[in-house]
Amino acid sequence: MFKKILIANRGEIALRVHRAAREMGIKTVAIHSTADTDAMHVRLADESICVGPPSAAQSYLNIPAIISACEITGADAVHPGYGFLSENQNFAQILEDHGITFIGPRSEHIAVMGDKIAAKDTMKKLGVPCVPGSDGGLASFEEARDVAEGMGFPVLIKAASGGGGRGMKVARSAAELENAYRTARSEAKAAFGDDTVYMEKYLSIPRHIEVQVFGDGKGRAVHLGERDCSLQRRHQKVLEESPSPVIDAETRARIGETCAKAIGDLHYIGAGTIEFLYENGEFFFIEMNTRLQVEHPVTEAVYGVDLVAEQIRVAAGEEMSLRQEDLIPRGHAIECRINAERLPDFRPCPGRITTFHAPGGLGVRMDSAIYDGYVIPPFYDSLIAKLIVHAPDREAALHRLDRALSELVVDGVDTTKPLFEALLEQPDVRTGNYNIHWLEKFLGI
Amino acid sequence: MFKKILIANRGEIALRVHRAAREMGIKTVAIHSTADTDAMHVRLADESICVGPPSAAQSYLNIPAIISACEITGADAVHPGYGFLSENQNFAQILEDHGITFIGPRSEHIAVMGDKIAAKDTMKKLGVPCVPGSDGGLASFEEARDVAEGMGFPVLIKAASGGGGRGMKVARSAAELENAYRTARSEAKAAFGDDTVYMEKYLSIPRHIEVQVFGDGKGRAVHLGERDCSLQRRHQKVLEESPSPVIDAETRARIGETCAKAIGDLHYIGAGTIEFLYENGEFFFIEMNTRLQVEHPVTEAVYGVDLVAEQIRVAAGEEMSLRQEDLIPRGHAIECRINAERLPDFRPCPGRITTFHAPGGLGVRMDSAIYDGYVIPPFYDSLIAKLIVHAPDREAALHRLDRALSELVVDGVDTTKPLFEALLEQPDVRTGNYNIHWLEKFLGI
Repeated sequence: MFKKILIANRGEIALRVHRAAREMGIKTVAIHSTADTDAMHVRLADESICVGPPSAAQSYLNIPAIISACEITGADAVHPGYGFLSENQNFAQILEDHGITFIGPRSEHIAVMGDKIAAKDTMKKLGVPCVPGSDGGLASFEEARDVAEGMGFPVLIKAASGGGGRGMKVARSAAELENAYRTARSEAKAAFGDDTVYMEKYLSIPRHIEVQVFGDGKGRAVHLGERDCSLQRRHQKVLEESPSPVIDAETRARIGETCAKAIGDLHYIGAGTIEFLYENGEFFFIEMNTRLQVEHPVTEAVYGVDLVAEQIRVAAGEEMSLRQEDLIPRGHAIECRINAERLPDFRPCPGRITTFHAPGGLGVRMDSAIYDGYVIPPFYDSLIAKLIVHAPDREAALHRLDRALSELVVDGVDTTKPLFEALLEQPDVRTGNYNIHWLEKFLGI
Repeated sequence: MFKKILIANRGEIALRVHRAAREMGIKTVAIHSTADTDAMHVRLADESICVGPPSAAQSYLNIPAIISACEITGADAVHPGYGFLSENQNFAQILEDHGITFIGPRSEHIAVMGDKIAAKDTMKKLGVPCVPGSDGGLASFEEARDVAEGMGFPVLIKAASGGGGRGMKVARSAAELENAYRTARSEAKAAFGDDTVYMEKYLSIPRHIEVQVFGDGKGRAVHLGERDCSLQRRHQKVLEESPSPVIDAETRARIGETCAKAIGDLHYIGAGTIEFLYENGEFFFIEMNTRLQVEHPVTEAVYGVDLVAEQIRVAAGEEMSLRQEDLIPRGHAIECRINAERLPDFRPCPGRITTFHAPGGLGVRMDSAIYDGYVIPPFYDSLIAKLIVHAPDREAALHRLDRALSELVVDGVDTTKPLFEALLEQPDVRTGNYNIHWLEKFLGI
């Protein structure tokens, strides 16, 4: 087992990794920017090293500084958390070259899943249901027209190197297609330096459903059911739950086994998430995240597992302890992302927290790196706490969430807590009747 | 279902009940003394009523004031928590007479279990294993001698109306018996106004093991395994765990079924705890607590149940939702009672809490009614927080406890946190090798 893990992240996820490591008897090294000297992950880790100035590019993304920090502290493994370097194949490769274990998948799997066309191609071959569309990049407008007519409108043109909605255009009819194709290409060129675009069938009111998978790197893999993350604002998940209100046990087993078989065949190691759009009872692969997700605690609650400890175990060469037959979902879990943002426009609201009080009691988990007097720096993500509730069923979980929110106190900065209080009053949220557009409609954007 | 529950208690247990009620959509009424105006149970309840001055006798034990509070607020039920009026048959009876539901057993069961001789007699008849001893009170020294010689020394003489060790004497040989008998009687007379004493076989190094039971009042009852509460100081539990490190599944099923059958036969309603001394593989009944225990959360963690919600449900006439076949223990849970006390002498340490930070993350539950700036009044119990951890096995739970303790911050008053940090380093605690005398020996008292 590792002696010392360097945690290449900050905030609640750095704390999450520290907790798992400490419980396994492994020492931790925190890295931090000069803006994070007083951060809780720094306070709780066994050692800490400053890796640069506030800008993430110069600190949390500063590979040479992080490698130096590993060498100075003698860390034998690195956990990247999510975001930052967690899906950077180059970082994984450099660590490998330095004889330091990257707690995550092999760099080749990060690489293939980081390329949207290659990822879809791989998943399709492995039997994972994909959105119908072009086979890779479109060579010409004529090809685009043929593919679109073959599967019917509406269609979506997407940049191969894209993300965040850039280089993405919908064509609802043949008349709209040429303009959509040209615009997507020029946006893609401008944004990513690559004008390769591909086409997919456009789903109008899908849900976002993702399957948690875990592989041992030697061909064995399991699934841990799904999470429904359809409540999104600008492609950012806001509230996540497991199980999905619309997936029954048979469907769960079917899509779960398909996903587990795929990543087993890949010889994938560690935690991964296969994301789907789900519409009319059908799953359509979007992408695979080759890392821990922000919303992993809802799966931990429902399946009674510690995903981070398991990541560490398999990365250290131990046998995966998860067995499909033991993974029985129990109850319902919901996570709220509490952001330091001012409603209604979600403007980031950094500053000093004058009072912080976490909810407690049965079935409540808080993953947060804030404390009384903590100053939220303006440089990073505005997520300050994840509030996770677990209860015997969805109805009870909603009541528990309402109760826990009523106890949460964060003074000094605005937070998104009132959004969740408002959501709990919405009949569609109470019944689980939503899709990926619901929240933006509710917010009037 | 009830519309409004008055919570006749304070501190963390008042909050515990409030949380369950709120999650069930039931309004809550807090009562409080003038010393508890700023208490968290008052802040979170829907309504609150001051029932008297700080002294418990004039407020939390003030039955007329509490009945008035029910009438003023229209509460249709009262939850007594633990301590205070929770095992007061008179209170239960008066509520009944006023048409207000007491969320607890019927007054007749409180009465019989409140009388140690009657309780033992009842349990013996119901097939629950009891400590060998006299059949009720001893009529004379001669009877004491005969009983002692019949079962062998050492023996224990106990006051029938006793508690807290008063009127309790050990005789290790025939030579010590007469003195022990006379002293116990005169102490009992002085302390309780009743010199009735009885005799039991004295167990020298037992563990304290208690079985959680739950009845529907109509003859159906279940057990939820055992808690090991052997780590005690002056008859006060300090750390509790479930399951016991020394009870195997077969023994658990056997004693559990015996207890469940007994309270089913009694037509007992609600939560109860049957306490045993356990030595050389044998259980010996001590007493039954006809209420929720402080340490109930370890059982909730291991069995995935909400005992307070279940108490409320059956008290309201709903069917008990617990079924023995669903009650499968999972993992291991440990609770630490964090008291505002100064070590090494455990002197109560009331005062202002200048900083409070609760531990979080996977498998950690905090039940506490303190907050930043809260002033602990000097009038009540010194328990300020219960830290409960749950993990797949005992070893993992100990590691999680260590991790959670490292995150807990309570500044401004001394607490018993350092005791738990010290306990975690003891090989006997790590292996579960302790009995009811272990902690006092460790503390040198």
